Amino acid sequence: MALFDLPLETLRTYAPPVHEPANFDAFWRGTLEEARAFPLDARFEEVDFGLRSLNTFDVTFRGSGGQPVKGWLLRPRNAGGDLPCVVEFIGYGGGRGLPTDWLTYASAGYAHLVMDTRGQGSVWRRGDTPDLAPDGDNPQYPGFLTRGVRSPQTYYYRRVFTDAVRAVAAARAAPGVDATRVAVAGGSQGGGISLAVAGLVPDLAGVLPDVPFLCHFRRASEITNAAPYNEVAGYLRVHRDAVEEVFGTLAYFDGVSFASRIHAPALFSVGLMDEVCPPSTVFAAYNRLPGRKDIRVYPYSGHEAGEGVHVPERLRFLRGLSGWAG
Amino acid sequence: MALFDLPLETLRTYAPPVHEPANFDAFWRGTLEEARAFPLDARFEEVDFGLRSLNTFDVTFRGSGGQPVKGWLLRPRNAGGDLPCVVEFIGYGGGRGLPTDWLTYASAGYAHLVMDTRGQGSVWRRGDTPDLAPDGDNPQYPGFLTRGVRSPQTYYYRRVFTDAVRAVAAARAAPGVDATRVAVAGGSQGGGISLAVAGLVPDLAGVLPDVPFLCHFRRASEITNAAPYNEVAGYLRVHRDAVEEVFGTLAYFDGVSFASRIHAPALFSVGLMDEVCPPSTVFAAYNRLPGRKDIRVYPYSGHEAGEGVHVPERLRFLRGLSGWAG
Amino acid sequence: MALFDLPLETLRTYAPPVHEPANFDAFWRGTLEEARAFPLDARFEEVDFGLRSLNTFDVTFRGSGGQPVKGWLLRPRNAGGDLPCVVEFIGYGGGRGLPTDWLTYASAGYAHLVMDTRGQGSVWRRGDTPDLAPDGDNPQYPGFLTRGVRSPQTYYYRRVFTDAVRAVAAARAAPGVDATRVAVAGGSQGGGISLAVAGLVPDLAGVLPDVPFLCHFRRASEITNAAPYNEVAGYLRVHRDAVEEVFGTLAYFDGVSFASRIHAPALFSVGLMDEVCPPSTVFAAYNRLPGRKDIRVYPYSGHEAGEGVHVPERLRFLRGLSGWAG
Amino acid sequence: MALFDLPLETLRTYAPPVHEPANFDAFWRGTLEEARAFPLDARFEEVDFGLRSLNTFDVTFRGSGGQPVKGWLLRPRNAGGDLPCVVEFIGYGGGRGLPTDWLTYASAGYAHLVMDTRGQGSVWRRGDTPDLAPDGDNPQYPGFLTRGVRSPQTYYYRRVFTDAVRAVAAARAAPGVDATRVAVAGGSQGGGISLAVAGLVPDLAGVLPDVPFLCHFRRASEITNAAPYNEVAGYLRVHRDAVEEVFGTLAYFDGVSFASRIHAPALFSVGLMDEVCPPSTVFAAYNRLPGRKDIRVYPYSGHEAGEGVHVPERLRFLRGLSGWAG
Amino acid sequence: MALFDLPLETLRTYAPPVHEPANFDAFWRGTLEEARAFPLDARFEEVDFGLRSLNTFDVTFRGSGGQPVKGWLLRPRNAGGDLPCVVEFIGYGGGRGLPTDWLTYASAGYAHLVMDTRGQGSVWRRGDTPDLAPDGDNPQYPGFLTRGVRSPQTYYYRRVFTDAVRAVAAARAAPGVDATRVAVAGGSQGGGISLAVAGLVPDLAGVLPDVPFLCHFRRASEITNAAPYNEVAGYLRVHRDAVEEVFGTLAYFDGVSFASRIHAPALFSVGLMDEVCPPSTVFAAYNRLPGRKDIRVYPYSGHEAGEGVHVPERLRFLRGLSGWAG
Amino acid sequence: MALFDLPLETLRTYAPPVHEPANFDAFWRGTLEEARAFPLDARFEEVDFGLRSLNTFDVTFRGSGGQPVKGWLLRPRNAGGDLPCVVEFIGYGGGRGLPTDWLTYASAGYAHLVMDTRGQGSVWRRGDTPDLAPDGDNPQYPGFLTRGVRSPQTYYYRRVFTDAVRAVAAARAAPGVDATRVAVAGGSQGGGISLAVAGLVPDLAGVLPDVPFLCHFRRASEITNAAPYNEVAGYLRVHRDAVEEVFGTLAYFDGVSFASRIHAPALFSVGLMDEVCPPSTVFAAYNRLPGRKDIRVYPYSGHEAGEGVHVPERLRFLRGLSGWAG
Repeated sequence: MALFDLPLETLRTYAPPVHEPANFDAFWRGTLEEARAFPLDARFEEVDFGLRSLNTFDVTFRGSGGQPVKGWLLRPRNAGGDLPCVVEFIGYGGGRGLPTDWLTYASAGYAHLVMDTRGQGSVWRRGDTPDLAPDGDNPQYPGFLTRGVRSPQTYYYRRVFTDAVRAVAAARAAPGVDATRVAVAGGSQGGGISLAVAGLVPDLAGVLPDVPFLCHFRRASEITNAAPYNEVAGYLRVHRDAVEEVFGTLAYFDGVSFASRIHAPALFSVGLMDEVCPPSTVFAAYNRLPGRKDIRVYPYSGHEAGEGVHVPERLRFLRGLSGWAG
Repeated sequence: MALFDLPLETLRTYAPPVHEPANFDAFWRGTLEEARAFPLDARFEEVDFGLRSLNTFDVTFRGSGGQPVKGWLLRPRNAGGDLPCVVEFIGYGGGRGLPTDWLTYASAGYAHLVMDTRGQGSVWRRGDTPDLAPDGDNPQYPGFLTRGVRSPQTYYYRRVFTDAVRAVAAARAAPGVDATRVAVAGGSQGGGISLAVAGLVPDLAGVLPDVPFLCHFRRASEITNAAPYNEVAGYLRVHRDAVEEVFGTLAYFDGVSFASRIHAPALFSVGLMDEVCPPSTVFAAYNRLPGRKDIRVYPYSGHEAGEGVHVPERLRFLRGLSGWAG
Repeated sequence: MALFDLPLETLRTYAPPVHEPANFDAFWRGTLEEARAFPLDARFEEVDFGLRSLNTFDVTFRGSGGQPVKGWLLRPRNAGGDLPCVVEFIGYGGGRGLPTDWLTYASAGYAHLVMDTRGQGSVWRRGDTPDLAPDGDNPQYPGFLTRGVRSPQTYYYRRVFTDAVRAVAAARAAPGVDATRVAVAGGSQGGGISLAVAGLVPDLAGVLPDVPFLCHFRRASEITNAAPYNEVAGYLRVHRDAVEEVFGTLAYFDGVSFASRIHAPALFSVGLMDEVCPPSTVFAAYNRLPGRKDIRVYPYSGHEAGEGVHVPERLRFLRGLSGWAG
Repeated sequence: MALFDLPLETLRTYAPPVHEPANFDAFWRGTLEEARAFPLDARFEEVDFGLRSLNTFDVTFRGSGGQPVKGWLLRPRNAGGDLPCVVEFIGYGGGRGLPTDWLTYASAGYAHLVMDTRGQGSVWRRGDTPDLAPDGDNPQYPGFLTRGVRSPQTYYYRRVFTDAVRAVAAARAAPGVDATRVAVAGGSQGGGISLAVAGLVPDLAGVLPDVPFLCHFRRASEITNAAPYNEVAGYLRVHRDAVEEVFGTLAYFDGVSFASRIHAPALFSVGLMDEVCPPSTVFAAYNRLPGRKDIRVYPYSGHEAGEGVHVPERLRFLRGLSGWAG
Repeated sequence: MALFDLPLETLRTYAPPVHEPANFDAFWRGTLEEARAFPLDARFEEVDFGLRSLNTFDVTFRGSGGQPVKGWLLRPRNAGGDLPCVVEFIGYGGGRGLPTDWLTYASAGYAHLVMDTRGQGSVWRRGDTPDLAPDGDNPQYPGFLTRGVRSPQTYYYRRVFTDAVRAVAAARAAPGVDATRVAVAGGSQGGGISLAVAGLVPDLAGVLPDVPFLCHFRRASEITNAAPYNEVAGYLRVHRDAVEEVFGTLAYFDGVSFASRIHAPALFSVGLMDEVCPPSTVFAAYNRLPGRKDIRVYPYSGHEAGEGVHVPERLRFLRGLSGWAG
Repeated sequence: MALFDLPLETLRTYAPPVHEPANFDAFWRGTLEEARAFPLDARFEEVDFGLRSLNTFDVTFRGSGGQPVKGWLLRPRNAGGDLPCVVEFIGYGGGRGLPTDWLTYASAGYAHLVMDTRGQGSVWRRGDTPDLAPDGDNPQYPGFLTRGVRSPQTYYYRRVFTDAVRAVAAARAAPGVDATRVAVAGGSQGGGISLAVAGLVPDLAGVLPDVPFLCHFRRASEITNAAPYNEVAGYLRVHRDAVEEVFGTLAYFDGVSFASRIHAPALFSVGLMDEVCPPSTVFAAYNRLPGRKDIRVYPYSGHEAGEGVHVPERLRFLRGLSGWAG
């Protein structure tokens, strides 16, 4: 994958104007209030997958519309006291899989809550949470990016971001978790969700988005053919009269707008040859963050960016957070 | 596309055993009764797309769950009396588009009702009918073939086939249509839907499935990688424990089983190099038909089969039906 | 297909210099005179394809070199009086097929003559007109774009454009056609032919080129690998010493040069992600038109551009022409 | 390229029935007589390409229809007396190029005449001989395999095989060539032409077809998608009613039928993973040869078969011919 | 990926004859003796990657030729007493990466030694062990499958399998490991290495090969084009005279031959749509095992087979081994 | 392949800064001295491949590390006196093959020595020279571009360039060669090696690099995905911390730096659509040459550039050298 986007020196200061609806904050305030009308009802049922050094819990809490959302909670066995917790969101198309898929943060001494992404988990890793779509939801281009996209109210990611904010609440209610020390993390779609949550939940300890998806939709839909951003172009190729309506909806969900609302310390990563989440869309969000932040640039990487090499970077970042050093 | 399936002489008598649930007929009787609880409420609103030789109507009727389903009705302008009517179903991923997309049957002197396929119409031709999915519907592999596939009750095509049976009722209620002379037609997914409708509606005048999809799912999922049958394999690659459950559901929707219930005269077409709907899956259904039938074999064709060359074949077949000669 | 060509705001005024031979008009005057030496000999034989609302005619007239060229004429049945007529040219590789392939304009109340493209019609829709190549015609790169390209006199499109000018004459001679109201139309290659005819025939009622091919050959051969423009590069990769000779020939056939000679009202369409006929080559022609003109821009479309959605646009444009409102 | 055709032990005796027209020999007798009506008019003009150890000549002779056909003649400089001569035919799409492209046989001490293939030479190596197509020649699928295929009289390879028979006559008339010692050779299309010539010219010294094309057209068109056999399937996909007519024509040009008429000693080569000229089509011809023959089987090769490694095999075979040992 | 290999019912008993050299055991006895001439010199240096629930060690031991081989050892922190140990080998192209890449077995309560594969680790996960090739090693096809393949003495996998046998010795020498309870595991190439080690080391507790590579080379090189088996065909395409020599070498390294020497309990896995390690090559080995064995068949999987879903299967199998229940 | 690199007018003066190590000349002086410690030991054994107009010799000489390197020497038979000699280097992945592969220069009247490239010759044309890698050589990305790349001392091309300088010495020691008239030539990798040799050997008669590889590695690794430059990016994608170290090594091997040291007359060629060796990397070297030079630009060519058409260009250039006119 050759370099196809802007050169690194331009990316460092790339700050394109992005349309932000006037009622952006009101929309999200209303959305989260609506969700709070349902009790959280977070449940943690211990399950045995043969992991002797960790405790594993099957998690269920009520997300958007009060619908049950699944997840896993892992915790180092025999860890005394309440632990800091990482809430993680998953990449596009995958589901929560099994606890054995999520050993890193608990092995590092933290609690770790992984949230299933509603409707996803049939393309690469199994998910267990349906997406009960409200009226007005489709037709859509196969996938999730245009599900309900004709209105911010019915858009799929309104439900996902709400679930994700509730997942933070569930983590704070979990046994053995210190509610004052919760960070959010995730790669690709998980990174995009992290940005949204960090823009909506004011008191997080940190945010770790890797190669975040869901940033600067318009540029993404113009410079890459790669899935899943291509779903927007695919939809608009057929629904030719809906261009402004669709981008009008997406403006409520753009990581660039969430980024300017994030005050928690942040660690990003980006691959300069990433055609899935082009580096300019990542920097468009990153450069907006007003607070403490850092980004690892992997120049010869595509969407895999730092992969396993970035794991110790993340653990080092967490250990540097106040009260996380263990 | 080289020949990759069975040779033609084998296809001519290919009749593989296909699992048919004991309560197949009861399931469909119940399904259609449930739908009849909602009034049909068929409406036909004349619209002007500049077609002076035809009348065009925007159609709405209530399908599965009472949900509004859209369509178009075309009729030769100034045709005296009630006309025979072709009800057509659409290929995978496309929607009803515009009346200008559907000129053939009306130009041939028939009424023509085209049914939108719920949820579809964002990949190649625009659709206007959402699919309001009931509880329990997903996660699914992107597309439609595994939507709600974990139970026959929630499976997507239960709703589609119900819509399609209701579309025949709507056609019969349409102005200027002779309710005793209705045939069903369609290519690919439209062909699969035609088979289902012709197996469920006893008094049709004819059925014209071209390269029908939705036949012998298990073989299809094993011999082709092509979309959209690959959605079944894709889903089962992730949901590894669901193989029998999924094929248990699909058995209620298999064109092979519907075929053995069809008594209307039938004209099929098939392409021997068709990797999308492999010829063996088409002949598996065709060979089951107990009644009058014929099939056009296009040996060097893929999924396009006869294309425009098959249109006069269809018109000739219709003119040969009792009372259709005009 | 990401955006790969110039941005829309640049395209709006894109007017690159294109080499136009000094004897461009003389060349074409001579070419058409030479053709007129043969009698037109237009014949219209009614055929029955089961279309009751239309009359269909098998058309033969003498084109370039006096060679018989085939076509179809369709006309709304029972239409009183002489009708306006659309003469349509076909996209690359296809032929006239069957009358059932061409229902739109006649259903809209117009006469419609479709011209077969000599030599074509074996790649996607059957053609019935050979191309009898004169001496000096090849070797060539497989296809049509370099057939006889070593001289304007022997170049393939010299014969095709001549046929097309004669097709307008044939339409004017057709029964039930008002010779004063003839428009030309076509997509891709058909659009390129339309531009040539409209530049050569002064008194047309309108010209409707969709995503026209055969415009600004040099730029096209440098910015796209897609067929069929890639035939020029393919030929020049082997015939390395023929670059200027080839572009010297193509300069006599460039839609950009024809465009500056068009005075009939025009409706174009273009897809901004079209790699087959890149948008800059389309705008290079469009921006040259001195007269009344409009262009529909489909931003997320490739070569399909507006597809069925553009049909009502065309009908609306035709109804707006003087005497076409019906 | 995995093994996709029959296993080697089956290939060794593979002898499928191939339709041979009753008037096969009469057709070719007539064709060659017709050609002989034109004087051969072979001319050899010495040219200097800087090759000091060889003499190189630009060749022109009159082929089918009396049309000039080009070629090169190479000869070791200072070789005393008349030499044996290899007449070589070229692979599909290429032309005669330059004398520097053809050094092997002359360096080995033989005269070497390379014949340009009419119409070809714009895809990979430049050709200089047009194909002046007679009336009735097209439409065709781009390429050469379906040019004039609707009748044996107009079929492209009727002209090519005639040229090739005349090339042997030209070689025999060349300065410094011993007319009693002429062999024919070629790879792919050149191998197919060699088979035809060796079946039509009774007194050749040898025939060396590598991976011959133009053998068992029907099987080839069914088991491979690779170019150029795919042109037959591509043509028949559009011209659906012409299947028997096309194979009826091709039966006059099938290397399998020519093979049974070859009495000169033969050396073949074949690649077992060759999707371009599948090994079963090669063995179908090879196994028919009644005389002395041998075949080199390259099991892990595709269409490249033996490449440079096969050159010494060919030279050894030639040295073994009577009077060729030098 | 459609089913392309034998059907499951045939695979269940597929037992093709595979050439086994008469001195197979002597060759390996000599090879391992030669290696034992070098001291093992196993070193375990604790490193900190921020994993608080585990101890992690940088491992170095002397493998084939006395050359240093790297690895990681992980162990649950605070586990009392000596633990059973899983020795794992890595898939083709990857290296040992970081300890954070290998958390499963230690989290399950076992010691875990991961061996770097010499020379590998530059395609997907970083390796740190060079392959110092002895004289006679190449030329080779890029990759590892033909490195030194012209003789069993110089073949690359002779060194790798020797390293792997030594890795078991290193594990047995590791602190906190119970030398009587060591199992070997790995996927793809790691599975192939596991088979070799289990055939060479008599007293292992278990062997867990997933989708093993390096089995039935000849069949693999004929039925799949996928990397890395394609390296054999690629090499033989160029080294045409080396077919028997190469398969003569590979016969000393075939998992099928090792399988018949394995007496430890075994758990295999296989994907029926796996083109990388075709299921028939896996069953060819599996069906040879004389002892206790089981295989998980993933019918709709390619080379990923059971992925994360197979992890609990492996842990359950290990807990069932004598003394591994914890 | 569309134009993807800089436009020709920019290329004509493109002279990017390229990092050149301060001890570049010292490094190479030391390297060549080290090689000279081994006797050249050039041997020329006549072999018979049936080429009667040429003498062919199997060549062996001692290259880097004193290791035997193979080659072929060809000479026009019966040429009186010592001849000028072309030393040729081979493209990536191929080997010396057979003498029958190398007839051009000897047929033109020159001696011709072809050097095998150590380790290569298993991808397209057989090689016979292993690469005995010193300690510290790997892991590497499959191929040759990153073999030993972590230090200039161990880098693969240090050995290759040394072999190549020695090949010139071998040519000068060959029977019938005039040691004062030696030129170097080669395409792609062979062109890159030619540049190095011409920069290291002061008294060459000429240098003929076609589409040279191994120039401006950093730009190449950023603008093309094509093999083999993609090996650098592939390696750095895994070895993320080695970017500067790797480019630090490559700086000792960059054709751009060698170019500025070349004083022999030069003839280059370049294809403007060459994605393998992008034209900007070729011009980066070409524009640096201080002496007499010329370049043939093939605008519509990819990596094949001039192919056979460029052969007479090369012969004409050679004839123009002092004492080469014959």
